[in-house]
Amino acid sequence: MTPQPLPMRVPAAGLPARVRIHEVGPRDGLQNEKATVPTDVKAAFVHRLAAAGLTTVEATSFVHPKWVPQLADAEDLYPRLADLTAEGAVDLPVLVPNIRGLERATALGARRVAVFASATETFARRNLNRTVDESLAMFAPVVAQAKNDGLHVRGYLSMCFGDPWEGRVPLPQVVRTARALADMGCDELSLGDTIGVATPGHVAALLDALAQDGIPVDRLGVHFHDTYGQALANTLAALQHGVTTVDASAGGLGGCPFARSATGNLATEDLVWMLQGLGVETGVDLDALVATSVWMADRLGRPSPSRTVTALSHKE
Amino acid sequence: MTPQPLPMRVPAAGLPARVRIHEVGPRDGLQNEKATVPTDVKAAFVHRLAAAGLTTVEATSFVHPKWVPQLADAEDLYPRLADLTAEGAVDLPVLVPNIRGLERATALGARRVAVFASATETFARRNLNRTVDESLAMFAPVVAQAKNDGLHVRGYLSMCFGDPWEGRVPLPQVVRTARALADMGCDELSLGDTIGVATPGHVAALLDALAQDGIPVDRLGVHFHDTYGQALANTLAALQHGVTTVDASAGGLGGCPFARSATGNLATEDLVWMLQGLGVETGVDLDALVATSVWMADRLGRPSPSRTVTALSHKE
Repeated sequence: MTPQPLPMRVPAAGLPARVRIHEVGPRDGLQNEKATVPTDVKAAFVHRLAAAGLTTVEATSFVHPKWVPQLADAEDLYPRLADLTAEGAVDLPVLVPNIRGLERATALGARRVAVFASATETFARRNLNRTVDESLAMFAPVVAQAKNDGLHVRGYLSMCFGDPWEGRVPLPQVVRTARALADMGCDELSLGDTIGVATPGHVAALLDALAQDGIPVDRLGVHFHDTYGQALANTLAALQHGVTTVDASAGGLGGCPFARSATGNLATEDLVWMLQGLGVETGVDLDALVATSVWMADRLGRPSPSRTVTALSHKE
Repeated sequence: MTPQPLPMRVPAAGLPARVRIHEVGPRDGLQNEKATVPTDVKAAFVHRLAAAGLTTVEATSFVHPKWVPQLADAEDLYPRLADLTAEGAVDLPVLVPNIRGLERATALGARRVAVFASATETFARRNLNRTVDESLAMFAPVVAQAKNDGLHVRGYLSMCFGDPWEGRVPLPQVVRTARALADMGCDELSLGDTIGVATPGHVAALLDALAQDGIPVDRLGVHFHDTYGQALANTLAALQHGVTTVDASAGGLGGCPFARSATGNLATEDLVWMLQGLGVETGVDLDALVATSVWMADRLGRPSPSRTVTALSHKE
């Protein structure tokens, strides 16, 4: 007997019809892996992700190679992906820390960029060597120039739900920083639970607070880490509050180097399983995506932490 | 700087004030572990779980030792837990497959028992060597005698959301079997997603269907497996639908031997993290529980698959 395919498709009330998955594996994932992956493998990875139906794949980061040696090949990698953007079906945003990074990215034809801010002083100091306000002042001209060049700009906001040094992060502090990023022209904000401590009520409360501040939910994405196993429950809470952009990393690649845990980003496969069951369209072919993550895990020499990848790749 | 404790407590609308965790680690967890754990270790495990604040701990199973050799020591183990039930603060239900098992359990003073039924024909055949109706006929006199003896009876219903051989499981089929268990006198039903395929809309639909059939939600518990990473999101959906009894396994012990995956039951720690953040009372001391799961993982010789155990036990 051939079993009928699972999960059963049973929509739930109050959820969006479609979710845009912002795939961060090639950038946020590989940036936090110990091994440096060859450029050829990275290019094949992005192509495979696009072939699996992901339409937004954050490809790399134009930071100084000294800070993120894993992505030092951005200049070599990006041109190898030109066929994907030429067809227009796939967006390949890149991270840019400053004007120099923005200029390097636009010189190669990037049409979407992202900046990376922090909601907490300690992480701003450790990650950017600046106060929160100083880092916002650093990003303002980057965003202004990007908008002037007609680019789409995403603003990452990290440590929205907790900080490893400060502990709790007050909601008004997050709203204030989000407001600053929105006001400087970011088209989209990605709310990061960098250390994975959020729970669903906290997610709902932050989304409510941002809505009250006048930041519409269609400008918001969520970026959850699975450090405490909460990422998918938090995603469900976000979807119930109208969010339609969800960050995830194929195979659960990457993580936060400060969390000292085996788990990092929400695995794209675990997300797609849930959305398939809920009848929420993503355009992703789950089998092709799992095959891609298994292939990448082989190259990294360690198994994927994704539950769905583990289960589907061990099927009889 | 000492960070303030996380997760932040941010209640969400529409959730219960308190959840009763039905801890299944010593029975469902150890039953599905390869290693057979010494009786001394099992007794210490149950005592540690109770000391961590768990008030319902399924202790063992009075099945024939031939079928579940891991729990063949039920007669030796149960009397060693008498101090816990004597104080009245902890319930120690046990699984009983038939009248003989029930008599063995009650002879040792058990006040709560459980029977284990299947929503699908194939699993009933494989697990119980009977059709669904034949297995219900087998359980009816067990439940009747238990109720006559004044015991509390739980009815497990497995494969509620999918079956490895049949694939999809129609809701009416689940409702029919649940109704039969309720009608024969089960005080509580535990809805099992034995292979971990459920998604939140499916959970909501089954709870709605059972409510429509007149089975009140306060007689229902949910039993999710994390095979595809969905267990906690499904739990959130169940809580939003009024469920207040949630099964979980300390450290994520156990699993389904047929799923061929590394992951099994929802880890109690991942559940407690979410409920703490949501401000839902459980009475559980998370640090004591994590220490217990780390201790048990050492005895089993493999790390806990729980994300929360992994993260908290690797803290600096």
